[in-house]
Amino acid sequence: MRATVIHAPHDIRVAEVPDPTVRMSTDAVVRVLRACICGSDLWAYRGESARQPGQRIGHEFLGIVEEAGADVRLRKGDLVVAPFVWSDGTCDFCAEGLTTSCPQGGFWGSVGSDGGQGEAVRVPFADATLVKLPAEAAGDDRLLTALLALSDVMGTGHHAAVGAGVKRGSTVAVVGDGAVGLCAVLAAKRLGAGRIIALGRHQARTDIAKLFGATDVVAERGEAAVDAVRELTRGQGARAVIEAVGTEQSMRTAVEITRDGGAIGYVGVPHGSGTGLDLGVMFDRNIALRGGVAPVRTYIPELLADILNGTIDPSPVFDRTVGIEGVPDGYRAMDERTALKVLVTL
Amino acid sequence: MRATVIHAPHDIRVAEVPDPTVRMSTDAVVRVLRACICGSDLWAYRGESARQPGQRIGHEFLGIVEEAGADVRLRKGDLVVAPFVWSDGTCDFCAEGLTTSCPQGGFWGSVGSDGGQGEAVRVPFADATLVKLPAEAAGDDRLLTALLALSDVMGTGHHAAVGAGVKRGSTVAVVGDGAVGLCAVLAAKRLGAGRIIALGRHQARTDIAKLFGATDVVAERGEAAVDAVRELTRGQGARAVIEAVGTEQSMRTAVEITRDGGAIGYVGVPHGSGTGLDLGVMFDRNIALRGGVAPVRTYIPELLADILNGTIDPSPVFDRTVGIEGVPDGYRAMDERTALKVLVTL
Repeated sequence: MRATVIHAPHDIRVAEVPDPTVRMSTDAVVRVLRACICGSDLWAYRGESARQPGQRIGHEFLGIVEEAGADVRLRKGDLVVAPFVWSDGTCDFCAEGLTTSCPQGGFWGSVGSDGGQGEAVRVPFADATLVKLPAEAAGDDRLLTALLALSDVMGTGHHAAVGAGVKRGSTVAVVGDGAVGLCAVLAAKRLGAGRIIALGRHQARTDIAKLFGATDVVAERGEAAVDAVRELTRGQGARAVIEAVGTEQSMRTAVEITRDGGAIGYVGVPHGSGTGLDLGVMFDRNIALRGGVAPVRTYIPELLADILNGTIDPSPVFDRTVGIEGVPDGYRAMDERTALKVLVTL
Repeated sequence: MRATVIHAPHDIRVAEVPDPTVRMSTDAVVRVLRACICGSDLWAYRGESARQPGQRIGHEFLGIVEEAGADVRLRKGDLVVAPFVWSDGTCDFCAEGLTTSCPQGGFWGSVGSDGGQGEAVRVPFADATLVKLPAEAAGDDRLLTALLALSDVMGTGHHAAVGAGVKRGSTVAVVGDGAVGLCAVLAAKRLGAGRIIALGRHQARTDIAKLFGATDVVAERGEAAVDAVRELTRGQGARAVIEAVGTEQSMRTAVEITRDGGAIGYVGVPHGSGTGLDLGVMFDRNIALRGGVAPVRTYIPELLADILNGTIDPSPVFDRTVGIEGVPDGYRAMDERTALKVLVTL
């Protein structure tokens, strides 16, 4: 089959790789219909996260079950979406919903596993990992795209909103105008936030933020952005702040715009040698930090229901579509920020 | 009057200073009956926190109202305890219980204010700041000592337990065997923790931890301590971890012994150039960080009730008593760790 591999920084290729097969009785093979490129894939693309030459890449996909192991209840032909990690569904952590800490879990594209940006994927613990979608969605292009967001960005945005403690009426500020930050706006709106301040300088992106429920946009950077958020919040900052970038600078901004006693929900994969956290400031102001890698598998059922009933539609975060052979171009476009999030149709 | 002043690192003196007076109609002057020395005072003593030469010191005291401003409802002769910061009781933050973020608040011993380790203290916003105690407590030496813990360590330990998310049945680990760490054990027990693992190497202190409810004591240090906590928790770590030291090393230990998805309640004043937080590890394991300077004023009523009804008794954290002229000796003893917490009787 054809699949995306990474050979070195900025060297993404689409290559012929072995077809996946069922190896364990709990495996399934999924034929991919939709995949996409994630902001976090860019860390590998830019050489800021190490990868072995030839390693697969991509961790977001949905598709059709093509083959199922003997112990799998899903059936050939089922339409399914995969969260960005697989998990066994039986351990202590899975039982409590922290599927990302499953000792038997793993990431698509890790060494020895298939990546999402390919024609098919072997899925371990298929029943625990995959979530079945309504078959009729396969014929609805817009819906299928919205459902693909369940594999990562929508659930990750939701995790950030939960971590930040967003409740009905909350004032929320979102640092990061990538797909996760925008989905966090949508998630905060869904949780009933009263005011949502989106920080971002790209109008195409902040327009989506407004579509998703942002009430205010702060286009300034650095200290000016902090001042602008404080001005919008009676000088106090936002009680719930979402950090969806992962750099020292973005974390620093998040701390500065959080109201005393508030919380930062952080889902940007941390990068850089420092943390950007001034613990002395956080201490004096009782600012909490809560978040991390999102257990999106746990969130899929509730978010899926709200996509199907029309409450949320994350599909606008996808602003470019490529075929499998166009994936390298997709990386370039996202790296150059000419695309927000690239959809891969197969 | 006589009061403690700090002139330079390791240079603590008891000196003659002006008697405090009521300056604002909301002030009261409190004649101090009991004060004490805090582990955080040692940071100033050791020169790790800057102080102006001659600045007052001490932030924990209880005593008798000696004079009250025209707008104060407390009366001369009332027995009262002071939290370690004053606060106006009317701002947004006071209204929601975050008294440490009161814009008009301040710390005893800050420049221009009296410190707790002296014969009397001018108390701003007396009605909002002070909490009245039962008059009969003045005649009960043990009870008076227990009530003094409300000024800081008991409320701070409680804040740590709340930050760590301690609930009925929780498994809790406490890093730090100082008075705050020990009070955190007591607070965790009060909140219904099922298992409390105290980390500490000084038997006199871990004996108090056991008295306060610790079910396990880990005397190892560094990696061995981490291994020991993991062994006690099925390899997973504790869901609620309390950090009551404030060094990089103690924060690092706290992160390592926290169960995935758990929380660190931190109340040790942060010191050192780094944070000790490996944000990458916290991210992967969804570890939350919550705490900071404790709004003890808010906690005093509930903790006071439980001291009065005998549910908790923090008095064992005081293991040495000095008079006002003995305060410099008290600092030396705490600095050398020959005393856990020094009580000052006046």
